[in-house]
Amino acid sequence: MSERIVVVGFGPVAARLVDELLPAVRSGLVQLLVVGQETEAAYNRVMVAELGVGRTTAEALAMADASELEADGVEVRLGVKVKRIDRARQNIVLSDDSTEHYDRLVFATGSRPVIPNLTGLNPDPSRPVLPAGVTALRDLQDAAVLRAAVADGKRVVVLGGGVLGLETALAASEEGAKATVVHNGPFPLGRSIDRGSGSVLINSLRAGGVRMAGNARSTGVETAGPGGSFSALLLDDGSAIDGDLLVLSCGVRPRIELAEGCGLPVATGILVDHHLRTYHEPHMFAIGDCAEVRCPDAACVDCRTAAGPSGLVGPGWRQAEWLAEYLVVLARDGQAAADALEALPKEKPGVVVLKARGINLAVAGDNQADPWDEELLEAGAASGRARRQISQWADPEHGRYVKMTTRGGVLEGLVAVGMPRTAAELVVLFERSSELPADRSLLLRLDGPDQLDAGATSNDPQRTVCRCAGVSAASIEDSVVEGCSTVGEVSKATRAGTGCGGCHEDIKGIIEKHFQAAAA
Amino acid sequence: MSERIVVVGFGPVAARLVDELLPAVRSGLVQLLVVGQETEAAYNRVMVAELGVGRTTAEALAMADASELEADGVEVRLGVKVKRIDRARQNIVLSDDSTEHYDRLVFATGSRPVIPNLTGLNPDPSRPVLPAGVTALRDLQDAAVLRAAVADGKRVVVLGGGVLGLETALAASEEGAKATVVHNGPFPLGRSIDRGSGSVLINSLRAGGVRMAGNARSTGVETAGPGGSFSALLLDDGSAIDGDLLVLSCGVRPRIELAEGCGLPVATGILVDHHLRTYHEPHMFAIGDCAEVRCPDAACVDCRTAAGPSGLVGPGWRQAEWLAEYLVVLARDGQAAADALEALPKEKPGVVVLKARGINLAVAGDNQADPWDEELLEAGAASGRARRQISQWADPEHGRYVKMTTRGGVLEGLVAVGMPRTAAELVVLFERSSELPADRSLLLRLDGPDQLDAGATSNDPQRTVCRCAGVSAASIEDSVVEGCSTVGEVSKATRAGTGCGGCHEDIKGIIEKHFQAAAA
Repeated sequence: MSERIVVVGFGPVAARLVDELLPAVRSGLVQLLVVGQETEAAYNRVMVAELGVGRTTAEALAMADASELEADGVEVRLGVKVKRIDRARQNIVLSDDSTEHYDRLVFATGSRPVIPNLTGLNPDPSRPVLPAGVTALRDLQDAAVLRAAVADGKRVVVLGGGVLGLETALAASEEGAKATVVHNGPFPLGRSIDRGSGSVLINSLRAGGVRMAGNARSTGVETAGPGGSFSALLLDDGSAIDGDLLVLSCGVRPRIELAEGCGLPVATGILVDHHLRTYHEPHMFAIGDCAEVRCPDAACVDCRTAAGPSGLVGPGWRQAEWLAEYLVVLARDGQAAADALEALPKEKPGVVVLKARGINLAVAGDNQADPWDEELLEAGAASGRARRQISQWADPEHGRYVKMTTRGGVLEGLVAVGMPRTAAELVVLFERSSELPADRSLLLRLDGPDQLDAGATSNDPQRTVCRCAGVSAASIEDSVVEGCSTVGEVSKATRAGTGCGGCHEDIKGIIEKHFQAAAA
Repeated sequence: MSERIVVVGFGPVAARLVDELLPAVRSGLVQLLVVGQETEAAYNRVMVAELGVGRTTAEALAMADASELEADGVEVRLGVKVKRIDRARQNIVLSDDSTEHYDRLVFATGSRPVIPNLTGLNPDPSRPVLPAGVTALRDLQDAAVLRAAVADGKRVVVLGGGVLGLETALAASEEGAKATVVHNGPFPLGRSIDRGSGSVLINSLRAGGVRMAGNARSTGVETAGPGGSFSALLLDDGSAIDGDLLVLSCGVRPRIELAEGCGLPVATGILVDHHLRTYHEPHMFAIGDCAEVRCPDAACVDCRTAAGPSGLVGPGWRQAEWLAEYLVVLARDGQAAADALEALPKEKPGVVVLKARGINLAVAGDNQADPWDEELLEAGAASGRARRQISQWADPEHGRYVKMTTRGGVLEGLVAVGMPRTAAELVVLFERSSELPADRSLLLRLDGPDQLDAGATSNDPQRTVCRCAGVSAASIEDSVVEGCSTVGEVSKATRAGTGCGGCHEDIKGIIEKHFQAAAA
């Protein structure tokens, strides 16, 4: 008898799981039900801001087609919530009071925006009711609100100095809005970057038309706009930042209440082991933003340094892919065979890329130490391990900054601003744990005016272009050779560019290069 | 009737003045008396440390030959002191109680070492009586003391983190002594360099075998060695640095007491105007270490930022050269013609080069601001002037560091450690006030492993190789073509390399290149 798999949530990660399970559904090996709270099937949430500034369309963001899936035999329930889970009976109870049985249940409930505790906002995180003119920019409706403000050249206040907040502000500003970023600390991206890159980044953002309000602690929102809508963000020094739209960009929190409600162990996210199984519950799994991989084995070295859910789509997709295989083996060959599968490999620390016109920033790993910070550099250098070393190029006048943190010649951290080729090369070196050239300044040449040495390894066809979906330059080139001539077509054929969108320029470059070579 | 010129002091600067006056002496236009306190005629004091570690000979240091001068008609009095000056009668009174008349008197009394105020040392600066095993490394006798210690592999403690102290410690260490540098502050050369270069420099010095004791305040010397000689330098934290020889390298102070004693205005040095004339006294002049060019005109813009005596031999030589011409015109054509001469050009801020095997350091101008120091960078940017900008490359793991401080693209400060070609190029750009390339990182390529672009302008034949004597590469090449094949021969022919010695490697390079080209 075929297993019935229920997927709770229908975001990009769930969509990938469903996709990977389709052959097993078609062959009748498994039955599949996917339940989505929104009325739309999965779409690329990471690019909602792009939609909000009018740079992409809802169609381009779609990641699943409910009727196609149903034609393939998948049950799709949209616009309903799972109210609770009856583990004894292996049933889920939906918001329309129907129940559905599961053999296996996969949590793909994702995350929700953090709503900061400000006067004038409802602080209940599970049921945010935001005033008009305040949005967390999470779904298609939010995008429409931003779209209207940008189209009218309104004042958009972005609260939060994370990558999404910065990208939103920059894009909004470029498309005609007056954007202000309000953030804590002296520079944005505070946890990932250092003072040098922070300083250069701020100048670049300002040059991009964004007003930066740093070291700001917001305390409330004023809703004196038309119809009680947002009119100003209030700061703790008594000042206010006037605006027409407030975009909350304060991070996300895993949606774990359903799992918690049925008694599963949770931490920041739903706790799962290296097979993505929830603790002590063979029927349940979790993937994506809601899942926290941290196994119950106290001696596990990997889990000692596990960092909680990454909030990035790439790791979620890799989990979806892995779990699909597991579930298929489980349904076909039984528990022992499934458990014999190699565990999901540990995620490498993520690379963060800021995608914006005129600004290039790449960050990975730990960048806090400065070259003269003996204490930080010696940290972790016990038992014969090499100490950390820093190389740093700072040219703030020209908006350029690179810091490389190495141990034994291998990158442990990198941050690069205004040096796109150097950044790309460093990312490759970081992801491969390759040793840097002894003369680190060679890397700066990649962004030299001559570009003589541009891209020794960054022209490597095996390099990863789309880090979210894990697609190499070679695969993209193949798709272009086979006829793809736009980023959209490449995305459809290879999945490259379907995540954060940070590689769209790279994909364009590969397409252009191909057609130039063909024309020559 | 010919004018009688008396030169008080017979160091390198006096030697140059005498040299330049020789034709006028030979032709009978002037009479010349030079009075030296030491029993030796002028020798290159800057290289006494080199002599002390056995790398050069007293003969090579000699800058004048008393009997040759006398054969030319110059009166040379050695081993006598000028006790006082009788301005009314225009006489000097010597230590042997003889008197000598002057028409013009030139102070070239130089400077004396600063003897720090430590228990166990005589604090009277004009008559230092140092215990055995303590030397200020100023004259040939001091060099002999150091020579003995180095030859025996003794422990040499150098007090003071200036260029001379560092060079002495490095050379002593390389030649077999155990050298320690004791200095104030977190790094040596504190006033000229910044934390980054300081940190890299300290590591390089340690790699060169020198023990570095920073942030140290010395309070006294212990003289428990054989025969009451130096045994330890005592610090204010109660600790002691043991050693066999203490080298005091705490800077110098102009010798001005003779000028002061006869009523001339003095500041740090003997005050002179842009014609090197002492104030309100047409018969007296001062040049070299004892002279402070700062004219009595309160409105003079140059003198507003005048920095006092530089302590470098180069500016002294340029003064000697200029004054020789003035004195000749004065004797030949009278006061009006002499005063019509163009005043001595203002000295550019000096370039300091640390000469040591395996360590390359060049410093010039102001290097205090770091790239994020808004306040320091905005300083002086009033009334439409560009603000300062910093570019910085730090790679302490490989002992490399460069900081370029620019205003409007032109260097106001530079410091480079471990990057000799980049340093040389920056020095050229600094001295010419040339605009840097927009992409400053191009300069780092000069020290790249390929050296592809090595020396676009640093191969320029017009570049200054010897900054002390102001000799271009072209002049040195000419002397090589005409037969000079050693540094000593080039020095004799061109004066290049007769100052601080920092260009000896450069001169060697030019010689080698010539003979390679000849052999090819």
